[in-house]
Amino acid sequence: MFNNILIIGLGLIGGSILQGIIDNRLADNLYAIDFDKSVIDNAIDDKLITNGDNELLTLARTDVLKDCECIIIAVPAFAVKNILEQIKTAISHKLLPSDVIISDTASTKGNILKDAFAVFGKLPPNLVLAHPIAGAEKSGFMARNGALFKSHKLIICPHDFNHQNTVDKIATLWQALGASVDFMPADKHDEVLALTSHLPHLLSYALTFQLAKDEESLNIFRYAGGGFRDFSRISASSPIMWHDIFLANKQAVLKGLDNYQTILNQLKSAIENDNSDDLLETFEIAKNAREHFGRLLVEKEKLKNSS
Amino acid sequence: MFNNILIIGLGLIGGSILQGIIDNRLADNLYAIDFDKSVIDNAIDDKLITNGDNELLTLARTDVLKDCECIIIAVPAFAVKNILEQIKTAISHKLLPSDVIISDTASTKGNILKDAFAVFGKLPPNLVLAHPIAGAEKSGFMARNGALFKSHKLIICPHDFNHQNTVDKIATLWQALGASVDFMPADKHDEVLALTSHLPHLLSYALTFQLAKDEESLNIFRYAGGGFRDFSRISASSPIMWHDIFLANKQAVLKGLDNYQTILNQLKSAIENDNSDDLLETFEIAKNAREHFGRLLVEKEKLKNSS
Repeated sequence: MFNNILIIGLGLIGGSILQGIIDNRLADNLYAIDFDKSVIDNAIDDKLITNGDNELLTLARTDVLKDCECIIIAVPAFAVKNILEQIKTAISHKLLPSDVIISDTASTKGNILKDAFAVFGKLPPNLVLAHPIAGAEKSGFMARNGALFKSHKLIICPHDFNHQNTVDKIATLWQALGASVDFMPADKHDEVLALTSHLPHLLSYALTFQLAKDEESLNIFRYAGGGFRDFSRISASSPIMWHDIFLANKQAVLKGLDNYQTILNQLKSAIENDNSDDLLETFEIAKNAREHFGRLLVEKEKLKNSS
Repeated sequence: MFNNILIIGLGLIGGSILQGIIDNRLADNLYAIDFDKSVIDNAIDDKLITNGDNELLTLARTDVLKDCECIIIAVPAFAVKNILEQIKTAISHKLLPSDVIISDTASTKGNILKDAFAVFGKLPPNLVLAHPIAGAEKSGFMARNGALFKSHKLIICPHDFNHQNTVDKIATLWQALGASVDFMPADKHDEVLALTSHLPHLLSYALTFQLAKDEESLNIFRYAGGGFRDFSRISASSPIMWHDIFLANKQAVLKGLDNYQTILNQLKSAIENDNSDDLLETFEIAKNAREHFGRLLVEKEKLKNSS
């Protein structure tokens, strides 16, 4: 599919993309950058990559990236801008082709568009924003899994200046990794993710924090059952990563949170006033929606196991 | 342990108590009441119970309950008061011994104390409130499991007029069913359960409702990942049962919700103002608490498998 691909960031996502490209023979040469030089050294020793470094410009100055066709940036959202600046410098020094396709994996998109505009002074036609909706309990390169994206959604957020063939190439790459590719504008993506991912994390963090700060302290957890177990699982997620996401997707998160608080106040008032009808109607709608979602999950699982 | 036990309500909990008593040979004769006569008829046919009916007073008039030593009420919280009234009538007609031990399984306790006081004009010394912190995905008598309570917490809420030996007998019964028995006052119980069980359900219902009402309707669920899956699982719980619980435990739920809303507003303001320190500190405390809770769960699981 590509002769030369560069992956920046070999965490769980970057590592799984690398492994998936290898497993599916989607590139001739793979290069990688990771701030942890030992990860790069091991990947070279294991013949997973042709070459790599902990600094993009250091690697680029060896001229190995002159024919690079595609860069996938798989670093935390807040680190993307700095990477884009380095890519711009490398292109201006002809260490990278000026038409190299640049893609990412960040879970927020509006901020990446803003960063790209700030760095390049425009939205590059060859910058294709992508977000794989996949993850795992464990993180890091050692937890990589070439089949991580299989039957998972991959959202591409085309922008107004994108070249269609560039978007197609990134879509084809992800399809080859097993993902189911959908398209939506960046602002829509950020709203959907705020509701389905970012808000649940914030609400779960808040309740677990409340229990932890209770005067009975952690003893109270002894009486918690399966409902709390499931509800609070995401409270164990990385504080620094989620801090970054909430600030990166601030507008959409705050808008979703406003609507949530309105609903919560309505439920509170229904409880205060013994308004049985309102409570029952809300719970019924939620139960039906959750059961619909449960059926989607079962379908997805079947798809994953059958292919 | 007892010669004669009467169980009122043969749902998942009542059925599992019945099965556990049989499996552990804790009573000579078992009697049961359930509003569904076919459940009673089948239980008699299967020789699980000596006798039963769908009406307590009808069964009591056959004189089989004259030596009954213990009644366990395993019906929804809102139906307990009516059962207590029937028990009072049966005692006054000498169809039940006046010193019969009465216990329950309701997940809220302050309201049961209030109901008992309203029915008996005092808190009966032989009324012992108990709440098994256990459940299962499925409900109903057919889903019963004699080991359901094994290694689960069972909270007894003694009241000021309880006879200690009566409390001890109920504690011994539950320990024989495998439960780990703790004691706390009813108001403390209701506060703890509001935080660890009732509030998570309310918060989960609210977010699933919000997504279901979004203009993109249910399509939005296609982009939801594992975080939302776990967070929203309890939104599929029984609307009528949870409606009952929120109204039965109104004061404690509203108090917990007030505190939760304060925390949520602090997080909201931290996001609005890019207050990284506050966000990170809150998330760190929550993450540590959730990991502590995770370790408790692992310990419990070990205990369950080893004994």
